[in-house]
Amino acid sequence: MQKLDMRYEGKAKRVYATEDKDLFVVEYKDDATAFNAQKRGTIGQKGVVNNAITAILFPQIADHGVPTHFVEKLSDREQLVKAVTIVPVEVVVRNVAAGSFSKRLGIDEGTLLSQPIVEYYYKSDALGDPLINTDTAVALGWATLDDLSTIKDYALKVNQFLKDFFLKRGIKLIDFKLEFGKLSSGEIVLADEISPDTCRFWDARTNEKMDKDRFRRDLGNVEEAYLEMLRRVEAQ
Amino acid sequence: MQKLDMRYEGKAKRVYATEDKDLFVVEYKDDATAFNAQKRGTIGQKGVVNNAITAILFPQIADHGVPTHFVEKLSDREQLVKAVTIVPVEVVVRNVAAGSFSKRLGIDEGTLLSQPIVEYYYKSDALGDPLINTDTAVALGWATLDDLSTIKDYALKVNQFLKDFFLKRGIKLIDFKLEFGKLSSGEIVLADEISPDTCRFWDARTNEKMDKDRFRRDLGNVEEAYLEMLRRVEAQ
Repeated sequence: MQKLDMRYEGKAKRVYATEDKDLFVVEYKDDATAFNAQKRGTIGQKGVVNNAITAILFPQIADHGVPTHFVEKLSDREQLVKAVTIVPVEVVVRNVAAGSFSKRLGIDEGTLLSQPIVEYYYKSDALGDPLINTDTAVALGWATLDDLSTIKDYALKVNQFLKDFFLKRGIKLIDFKLEFGKLSSGEIVLADEISPDTCRFWDARTNEKMDKDRFRRDLGNVEEAYLEMLRRVEAQ
Repeated sequence: MQKLDMRYEGKAKRVYATEDKDLFVVEYKDDATAFNAQKRGTIGQKGVVNNAITAILFPQIADHGVPTHFVEKLSDREQLVKAVTIVPVEVVVRNVAAGSFSKRLGIDEGTLLSQPIVEYYYKSDALGDPLINTDTAVALGWATLDDLSTIKDYALKVNQFLKDFFLKRGIKLIDFKLEFGKLSSGEIVLADEISPDTCRFWDARTNEKMDKDRFRRDLGNVEEAYLEMLRRVEAQ
């Protein structure tokens, strides 16, 4: 599938049109940003790792009842996906308190939550992705109540699958961000990526951080953690 | 009913025990704070105005199907209420974008919302009353799903009543904050106050602000606006 015009360039990926209007090529970059792009850098091999992990996870997520935009991996840094319009509501699922959630609510990082929490954030770099709720997303026309009901159901299913998947590989899934898109048919599908950029992964034995927090917090061994996560995801 | 020990002193009110363990006396002060108490001052007659407005509104709200903690007005600054344990989730209902909502989401102040928005904030001075959602309130034990379902139903009923009540008096109800409490029986009732401290009121003809934003934003004529709101509420 030939890449044509670039349709979108995000912080970590580029999206290209193809000859088929219903298919896009996604290209994964090594560029890393944090804190709403106030911190910028590069993580060696990140694009390769995130493309590979996403390409392994998305088909298994589809097998667990959550349709996705993923079609196939094309190369080390590229994958073919269905064309979607992204729903401008980012979905965060939390199993353990960490990061901005801990800071905002005064809950110690590492506190196990009594049940998973699903949060919505309005996807807006200019506004710093503010927290919103269902009423706000609906009243401001960012998603319908039906869309959000489907999205929440899917997000909890993805969480259940991922928690089990990673625990078998010695990793605790602390929290993660999902994005959903709409096909031209109106069907909602999981889009974007699932990777150490979009999840908090802690080693189940040592609690060592194996994700982008190593970059955000200058913990060192960033590239090594990403490569180790790929090795664990590839393990049978 | 004799006031005994002071049980609680808030920014705008004091709460006293009485000989009856199921009844409290609330005393309204003139002290005003804003921006999580970073700004402090006094608004002359505020305690008298807010006590009077609350004492007029709460019985009418009860008549519209929302039980309240209110028993009777005792004096200019005092009212008798049922003893409750406050649910630590503040409820904000919005009809028109304004204040922190406008700033957070980049929506011009004065934009009519296509449907009322109900938001929850964790009641914590130390954390600056952060925005939360239903999942978070439940997972962290601040309210049950049943409590929040009742609270949202009540909040929308209060909104419908207040919107009509104020529009008849030439006032647009922009947004307002409610607090709910639990009686010893476990029943949820509307508590706290409804006043120019807790609502945004705009004159329906001129859009002039008739509420605490006059204090927050140094617009002048603060006491006059509070007294004018009392006159309108007292009008038949």
